[in-house]
Amino acid sequence: VRRVRVGDLDEAALLARFLPGLPTQALLGPGDDAAVLAAPDGRVVATADVLVEHRDFRRDWSTGADVGWKAAMQNVADVAAMGATCTGLLVSLGMPADLDVSWVDDFAAGLGAACRAVGTNVVGGDLSGATEVVVAVTALGDLGGRAPLLRSGARAGDLVTVAGTLGRSAAGLDLLQRGASADAPELVEAHRRPVPPWAAGPAAALAGASAQMDVSDGLLRDAGRLAAASAVVLDLDLRGALLGRWAAALAATTGVAGPTADGFVLTGGEDHALLGCFPPTATLPPGVAVVGRVRATGPGERPRVLVDGVPWAGPGVGWDHFAPGG
Amino acid sequence: VRRVRVGDLDEAALLARFLPGLPTQALLGPGDDAAVLAAPDGRVVATADVLVEHRDFRRDWSTGADVGWKAAMQNVADVAAMGATCTGLLVSLGMPADLDVSWVDDFAAGLGAACRAVGTNVVGGDLSGATEVVVAVTALGDLGGRAPLLRSGARAGDLVTVAGTLGRSAAGLDLLQRGASADAPELVEAHRRPVPPWAAGPAAALAGASAQMDVSDGLLRDAGRLAAASAVVLDLDLRGALLGRWAAALAATTGVAGPTADGFVLTGGEDHALLGCFPPTATLPPGVAVVGRVRATGPGERPRVLVDGVPWAGPGVGWDHFAPGG
Repeated sequence: VRRVRVGDLDEAALLARFLPGLPTQALLGPGDDAAVLAAPDGRVVATADVLVEHRDFRRDWSTGADVGWKAAMQNVADVAAMGATCTGLLVSLGMPADLDVSWVDDFAAGLGAACRAVGTNVVGGDLSGATEVVVAVTALGDLGGRAPLLRSGARAGDLVTVAGTLGRSAAGLDLLQRGASADAPELVEAHRRPVPPWAAGPAAALAGASAQMDVSDGLLRDAGRLAAASAVVLDLDLRGALLGRWAAALAATTGVAGPTADGFVLTGGEDHALLGCFPPTATLPPGVAVVGRVRATGPGERPRVLVDGVPWAGPGVGWDHFAPGG
Repeated sequence: VRRVRVGDLDEAALLARFLPGLPTQALLGPGDDAAVLAAPDGRVVATADVLVEHRDFRRDWSTGADVGWKAAMQNVADVAAMGATCTGLLVSLGMPADLDVSWVDDFAAGLGAACRAVGTNVVGGDLSGATEVVVAVTALGDLGGRAPLLRSGARAGDLVTVAGTLGRSAAGLDLLQRGASADAPELVEAHRRPVPPWAAGPAAALAGASAQMDVSDGLLRDAGRLAAASAVVLDLDLRGALLGRWAAALAATTGVAGPTADGFVLTGGEDHALLGCFPPTATLPPGVAVVGRVRATGPGERPRVLVDGVPWAGPGVGWDHFAPGG
């Protein structure tokens, strides 16, 4: 079987392989200079993220389908965090000339699977040569007449909630790094193909959430951003509570030490859970669990995040895309 | 003066340098997981493009400001081609750790200048590490209640038009490649900082244009796409007409041979002119010039583009992002 590389094909031939497996429904597109999407709300939600090989994924650890799935889902999660539903993705792909086109086919399959799972479409994009694989995705969304959920809306007395899971992606990455994937393939899968709780985002808006955001850089770091935006203190429950049980389950499954597992849950990114805040009287939607409380800052106290009432002193502070060795 | 590199800063510090010079007005953003833009038409136009260092630009030939300008403008041109006005850009930037942060400052300045020129805003994006500089832009637009202009709307008897210029970017690139920039700095500038006729796009829709597209891969190649989408023949006038005068002016300015200059005008990309078709009775908007006619395909004739009545046999066929040596 002759190996076909990206550099052997022109853009039209690559597109002809890329598009057929993708849901591409829009009012218009592809085929013209831009797509036209319905925006019935009269506002449009928009977010963009880029995934770079060697930094955000490794081709020996993740298939093309994994990368396509993840690129879609992390942007869908950002749209859901605003309380919106995803109406379309624009996907740009930079590829080295010696990349096997089967990787591109596989990428399109994973991207298409994610779109079908969420009920959205790829409405535009671009293919280009590059030294390493680069995936740039923009997601658009519709608010359905609701106010967007912001990071700045949390109020003292609110419940702090999580929809989705935390720590499983970080635990899966740790297994890959230790060459121990076989110990818990489901965690490796959680790293390769995160499943954000995309329906919980709009549901939270309908249920009266006061604030919401996507957890992409770790719970403590992202909760710190929400605390700062809302000028409040978030006190998370770990010991004897849901977050602690998640950590204990990860420790039991993977054999890592308790504090390490706590770190996965509190500082691991990429599960794309939704961190929310709700007034204490709200009826929480299905899949939304309480993980703490919001309180006002005390005299001289800055907005911050506490774990069981005290600042976190355990491992990890979350992902920084530019930190040395990050 | 200590040289500061991208790798010396974290994402927050990079954003703090990046955002202040940019117009960022939106209903909401930046600061949350996604921006919210007005979409008063109830539809939104969306397009994405990626620029990769060494392929789409060279850092020794274009400054950061040039690249920021061009990345914005090529997407604005795609929105204009649909007959829409640009309502916002999402800009993702991948950067090597050893990139001087002054390049990033410069990029933001050029991006901001382009946004201010067009009257649009940067409403979102992402910063990431990468091996080479990669710029991924999504542009959103509003149709203002008009039908989008498509490639498929041209009809026999229509006028073929161009708004903007052709060949100047290709001539400028040729000067750079020959080390002869000083011969015509204004053409080098046209390559580094194209100025698409963004206002002519919506104006064409208002004036009753039947079809429109952005010329990014060269007039002949892009006109071929329009001909195919509309199932017509486009006959362009070169000798003794506007396109020929443009070529003659480029030959006179740069000293290249006549056929080479013809090739710049007919097959050079990146000026981001707008190729349009109008019914012969239409009143053309300012800046829109006639360059040919649309006719029906004859018996057995495929949709195609002719120059002065015959297929083009001169140099160049336009830019292919994956062609060997492209």
